[in-house]
Amino acid sequence: MAAGLPGTVRRGLARASGHAAGGERPDDGIRTSRRERRVTPELSQKLKDAGLDPQTVENLVRTALDEDGPVDVTSEPIFAPEAASAGDFRAREAGVVAGIPVAAVVFELLDVAYEAKAADGDRVAPGQVLISVEGPTRAVLRAERTALNLLTHLSGIATAARRWTDAMEGTKARVRDTRKTLPGLRALQKYAVACGGGVNHRMGLHDSALIKDNHVAAAGSVTKAYEAIRAVYPSLHVQVECDTLDQVEEALAVGAKSILLDNMTDAQMAEAVRLVAGRAELEASGGLTLERARDVAVTGVDYLAVGALTHSARVFDIGLDFS
Amino acid sequence: MAAGLPGTVRRGLARASGHAAGGERPDDGIRTSRRERRVTPELSQKLKDAGLDPQTVENLVRTALDEDGPVDVTSEPIFAPEAASAGDFRAREAGVVAGIPVAAVVFELLDVAYEAKAADGDRVAPGQVLISVEGPTRAVLRAERTALNLLTHLSGIATAARRWTDAMEGTKARVRDTRKTLPGLRALQKYAVACGGGVNHRMGLHDSALIKDNHVAAAGSVTKAYEAIRAVYPSLHVQVECDTLDQVEEALAVGAKSILLDNMTDAQMAEAVRLVAGRAELEASGGLTLERARDVAVTGVDYLAVGALTHSARVFDIGLDFS
Repeated sequence: MAAGLPGTVRRGLARASGHAAGGERPDDGIRTSRRERRVTPELSQKLKDAGLDPQTVENLVRTALDEDGPVDVTSEPIFAPEAASAGDFRAREAGVVAGIPVAAVVFELLDVAYEAKAADGDRVAPGQVLISVEGPTRAVLRAERTALNLLTHLSGIATAARRWTDAMEGTKARVRDTRKTLPGLRALQKYAVACGGGVNHRMGLHDSALIKDNHVAAAGSVTKAYEAIRAVYPSLHVQVECDTLDQVEEALAVGAKSILLDNMTDAQMAEAVRLVAGRAELEASGGLTLERARDVAVTGVDYLAVGALTHSARVFDIGLDFS
Repeated sequence: MAAGLPGTVRRGLARASGHAAGGERPDDGIRTSRRERRVTPELSQKLKDAGLDPQTVENLVRTALDEDGPVDVTSEPIFAPEAASAGDFRAREAGVVAGIPVAAVVFELLDVAYEAKAADGDRVAPGQVLISVEGPTRAVLRAERTALNLLTHLSGIATAARRWTDAMEGTKARVRDTRKTLPGLRALQKYAVACGGGVNHRMGLHDSALIKDNHVAAAGSVTKAYEAIRAVYPSLHVQVECDTLDQVEEALAVGAKSILLDNMTDAQMAEAVRLVAGRAELEASGGLTLERARDVAVTGVDYLAVGALTHSARVFDIGLDFS
């Protein structure tokens, strides 16, 4: 969708007096394009294909751009509106990239031409170009931080998910996310988990049931809690949190197909796997660390629940190098 | 603003058939309150006093609540609409809390009574109660994760900022944030930095200028870049990024009052401090770590720029214990 990027970079120095004298709003060009531009149908489709809602992503990007304020008081006095720049977003470490179509929304809203040189989920090497951009210098500089804030965060999550996935290679266990996400970023964060080979747990309180201790206490037993939900939602995916093997047996007896093993030792989890014998999917949860991942995976559980993927993600280092 | 919380907890078990038979939407009560309720003037004022825009915070909280979907398929079949619960949000480790008035927005929008037992910026101990809540069980359970996602993230940032602040105790140096924030969360993240004793750098591109290498390259020199900005904004705060002591001298000569020392060694920074001799504020930047913080601080710089405060914050562990 982006034109090929010529190697040339055209930069211009704004005449400082021009802004003050002409009565022109220094940021008019960018403001107008932000207000009026929409993402292209092609990019919108790409976001949909990734399971993301294009309007939600666009709203988030507009919010992030708004956080940077209405004017760039550094760049606008220095770069004339007609000055143009090109550059490459490059990985500065090894990892997995996520968020390229999200960063693309930033570029499209700011009228910056771009060309993706990597795809979400790719393992990338230090120095590898992820996206090349070209456009008005003011727009490129405005896009830079918002695009990086999105790309580095989402790639950080994907890279972490990939580390867990790799640590469990050869087992059937997969890392799974939680609802411990950052406000406004849940869909994107969960998408990034999937880019790193992780599996998404429920998106919210609406799409899957999870019976926890307070539900069991209120209902009187695992059985009563399970049956109360089944009575209202006969075909819903219902997961039962179990602290003990007795609870696992009770959950199995009532017909649960998904069981969360809460804060169990590896030995207890291995025993739960033997007990369940394939009748339900098992998810390990509680204080899991990457160091422990393989030991947990070899117990035979299906999933490891890791809230830190989304609630404590370290950024993946990416920078914009101008040509 | 919240009524005192009685020690009693009233829980009820919904009759599962009631929801299905009555044609009642299980989540009607909560949906209605989310649509219609606004934060109280008292809380709105508290947010303003904290430097936060109440409408922006409310919008974010509504977005986060929406991410959890329109219905809680686990709790609504189990808890009757009239069932009530009380509980305490407790710190599970030592640190600094931030975001209590933000979590309060969650409670007010969901009609959960609350009482703050700690204040933003407080150092808290493991087990310490931060907020007590009481209300309809369905609402408390819906509020739980969104409140925790906000509180744990913001308290994580405040705790990190406090660690840096403590590490530099006895020096004049302060830790300062950057624009490396998560989309939609900038104002809250920067507020959390301040709760931990950190100092906020500019909020966006609009409120302060930062001359970087590409501005210098385009303008031709530090002097030309500085003068171009000064010509348009005579009284603006302008910071100049310098890689070398020669650039520091040039920035001083043109009258810069704020200089960012990029990727300098401690020896170079100490030399810059001597050279500047109080004529400009100095900010260390680039690859700083907590382990190195004190060594950098004793060079005599005023600020340490730490993007990780906001871009790679680990959560602070908080949980909701039901009474």
